[in-house]
Amino acid sequence: MKKISFTLLFFVNVIWVSAQSEQTLQIRSFRSQQEPQWIQDYLSLLSIPNTAADTLHLRENADFIMQQMRAKKISNVQLLQPDTKGAAPSIYGEIITPGAKQTLVFYAHYDGQPVDSTQWTKGTHPFTPMISFPMGDQLVIRKYSDAPKPLPMDWRIIARSASDDKAGVMAILWAYEAIQKSGYTLNYNIKFFFEGEEEAGSPHLNEIFRKYTSLLNADLWIICDGPVHQSGKKMISFGVRGDAHVEITTYGPYRPLHSGHYGNWAPNPGLLMAKLLSSMKDDNGKVTIRGFYDDVTPLTPEEKTALAAIPPVADQMKKELKFIAEEMPGVSLNDAIMLPSLNINGMLSGGVGAKAANVIPVTASAVLDLRLVPGNDYQTQQQRVVDHIKGQGFHVVTGEPTDAERMRHAKIARVKLSDGYNAQRTPMNLPEVRKVISAVQSTTAEQVVLVPTMGGSLPLFLFEKYLNAKTITVPIANHDNNQHAENENIRMQNLWNGVETMAAIMRMK
Amino acid sequence: MKKISFTLLFFVNVIWVSAQSEQTLQIRSFRSQQEPQWIQDYLSLLSIPNTAADTLHLRENADFIMQQMRAKKISNVQLLQPDTKGAAPSIYGEIITPGAKQTLVFYAHYDGQPVDSTQWTKGTHPFTPMISFPMGDQLVIRKYSDAPKPLPMDWRIIARSASDDKAGVMAILWAYEAIQKSGYTLNYNIKFFFEGEEEAGSPHLNEIFRKYTSLLNADLWIICDGPVHQSGKKMISFGVRGDAHVEITTYGPYRPLHSGHYGNWAPNPGLLMAKLLSSMKDDNGKVTIRGFYDDVTPLTPEEKTALAAIPPVADQMKKELKFIAEEMPGVSLNDAIMLPSLNINGMLSGGVGAKAANVIPVTASAVLDLRLVPGNDYQTQQQRVVDHIKGQGFHVVTGEPTDAERMRHAKIARVKLSDGYNAQRTPMNLPEVRKVISAVQSTTAEQVVLVPTMGGSLPLFLFEKYLNAKTITVPIANHDNNQHAENENIRMQNLWNGVETMAAIMRMK
Repeated sequence: MKKISFTLLFFVNVIWVSAQSEQTLQIRSFRSQQEPQWIQDYLSLLSIPNTAADTLHLRENADFIMQQMRAKKISNVQLLQPDTKGAAPSIYGEIITPGAKQTLVFYAHYDGQPVDSTQWTKGTHPFTPMISFPMGDQLVIRKYSDAPKPLPMDWRIIARSASDDKAGVMAILWAYEAIQKSGYTLNYNIKFFFEGEEEAGSPHLNEIFRKYTSLLNADLWIICDGPVHQSGKKMISFGVRGDAHVEITTYGPYRPLHSGHYGNWAPNPGLLMAKLLSSMKDDNGKVTIRGFYDDVTPLTPEEKTALAAIPPVADQMKKELKFIAEEMPGVSLNDAIMLPSLNINGMLSGGVGAKAANVIPVTASAVLDLRLVPGNDYQTQQQRVVDHIKGQGFHVVTGEPTDAERMRHAKIARVKLSDGYNAQRTPMNLPEVRKVISAVQSTTAEQVVLVPTMGGSLPLFLFEKYLNAKTITVPIANHDNNQHAENENIRMQNLWNGVETMAAIMRMK
Repeated sequence: MKKISFTLLFFVNVIWVSAQSEQTLQIRSFRSQQEPQWIQDYLSLLSIPNTAADTLHLRENADFIMQQMRAKKISNVQLLQPDTKGAAPSIYGEIITPGAKQTLVFYAHYDGQPVDSTQWTKGTHPFTPMISFPMGDQLVIRKYSDAPKPLPMDWRIIARSASDDKAGVMAILWAYEAIQKSGYTLNYNIKFFFEGEEEAGSPHLNEIFRKYTSLLNADLWIICDGPVHQSGKKMISFGVRGDAHVEITTYGPYRPLHSGHYGNWAPNPGLLMAKLLSSMKDDNGKVTIRGFYDDVTPLTPEEKTALAAIPPVADQMKKELKFIAEEMPGVSLNDAIMLPSLNINGMLSGGVGAKAANVIPVTASAVLDLRLVPGNDYQTQQQRVVDHIKGQGFHVVTGEPTDAERMRHAKIARVKLSDGYNAQRTPMNLPEVRKVISAVQSTTAEQVVLVPTMGGSLPLFLFEKYLNAKTITVPIANHDNNQHAENENIRMQNLWNGVETMAAIMRMK
């Protein structure tokens, strides 16, 4: 048994090393030497709080990052300030390569999701970065000074934004440092762009794009954000889904009623909501709203091939998430993500548990999340939901229904349509895009996973709209990084792989 | 116009006065003098929190009430303590009438429903009683010291249990005080019984009945709880519906998932719940659960006659409650109440409003309230719901599903069956019952409404089972008292009418 394993390991190792470029090995060697310093710098950055509206701390993050950029001899380092007062600036820097005609911009963001420190495992804190190692359901937690050195590849740094997305910021800067100190030259001009409001929905990115259009001119933006594929393989995604919401409220009696005295006589808003929501999907989880799947731009043959080549992770994910039946039986995760979706983010009527009372509640509410794929227009999709609600016999209002409306319509739904944005997808066959794929592939023996559209949403349409720019997303974080939640973490192997990935893209010809 | 109104008012007034007994007018006169003191006492009682499991405060309520009883010269005042430790006691007192061979017991309860003070109108609080007056959609709110005196008949006292059922407790005690101070004598022995766990489902009433059987021996129990008829007329009901609950939890992924990366692939527990709940009723609001309407005992001819004589209130109630369509189109409120019912008291999955997030929640929960009529067995009815859930393809568990269960069943529902009890109904033609009808009729010029079974529930079956006792319910609260909900209130006219009603029953021959 032991002998077989050893042979297998040896065999795998040989393939792996042989498929990686000389350059990647050089970058890795430089990283090994720099690791103690880089970790120290990273822990310092992670110690600075970076939640939205914490203007002073966000600025402290920006100052730290600009100091790192200047130390690495990046030129023209500056803050790009939106017009709106109090909005967090983006950070800019550049390397002008003599003779280069083309430009790449590397994007990451330095702000983080809100934190609820009470939810974090004891011994950790969003802004006191620790070194950790998951052992079953437990976490081994160490100060960096007490952790094994060099940090083992399966260990993690645990802190807010450790993965999302200070990992992106620092992997990009370290990659440039490694290239420069290793004596490599560049073929492209390189620009750096680090946003400070991504987790707040990029509310002022349009202002920055309008104000600094010529400074941000480029042939391709590399978005370094999000997790790699669940298989652990490196990944490139060529688009993101759009996103919009519909909030619905149904109405029962004007005041809460005793469910004994009036139950099954007065209309129950929870039942009305249950019937309405269940009318939106059939028993196979398919959305039944008229036209919902129309307008979807078909995948190109190249995209179809890429989709088919994505390693299957359903079994692994179902085991991890402890369920056996997909919402749409027989539709794989990859195929599901290529479709527009409708998800019930939340629903509430009356109370449950300790808040349950014997009443007919006055309202029921639900929040629907609509994800959109190329071809969908978010407002059309929202309107289809509204039309469906009407088709179910509801009188649709946008404010609280008036008494007159209540006395005229048997079923009333109040509908609130959120702002939203459409999906974005960059063709896989553009010359620069092909070069990025090759560059990333040169760093790994495993097949790079190419995802036509990832499930999540980013406002990449803004880049097209204001800069006429092409974008592709090259994530580096581990998939189980607890992004947006407690115990956010980056796995060391993913962080260091990320440096190699970014360096390969910077060096592409 | 003015002249006509005046004449009409005069005419109505004459009828009204002439139909009311001399005794009722005497009780009314005494009440007028006592009003300031009674209100002060009442506000003190309402200031003591009385939700379930708040043992210390419940005991404080009991002490206050016993002190009132002793001050009114009621004998043998004591706590009736159930065997179960920590359970709230009932309060007992008695008046032994020399020569009387028959005994009436007056029942009310001093505990209240759970409160969510954030739902109460600004300026009110469950345990800070205020004086209020509804003006359209607004509430005029005053401290008692700042309210007009005497409190106008249409004004209300707003606090938890102001109507349900501290109004019952105090109306009974005030009625006895008025009789005694007015120099009237009694013909029956009178007993007082105030329960402390009614809103928790009377879980230990059986223990009290078993322990104090001989003390509680009586010919008829008068249950003073619930609202009078929506027409505003006085009401007697001869039975109550039974009550039981089913709590259901459906399951999605084991941890909350990003709705972009996994939406419409991972199962959504809210959709599973919506589909399950909507499968329980057809589009005409009829329960589709197999056998749900079987077992119903038909009404007697006398009960059918009484039912037909109930004044129609549907139009008034719909206008007041601002809806136009009953849940079961064409089924009247009175007829609906003669059927077993299924009501969604509450449902929750993820968050809505400010708590909404882009997630697939891990669970959805719902609480169903089942009301039962004579002939139904509550456990059979609960089992029918469980069988229906299984029939919808769910694996039903009673605790958190294990990992093994999650990996074996596509749809899992956790079901919690509450304790419950069956309906109860007393024949309308018993001699003492007829006397009560006459006594209540003597206090009002309007026809007293006789309801075979009221919509609400009380554990009256326990009285039959453990004490072999007859019960009828004589409610006093206004129908729009927001019982069990925010802004619970008692209308002054109803409170004072209640005193007259109770006094007339105490004095019956």
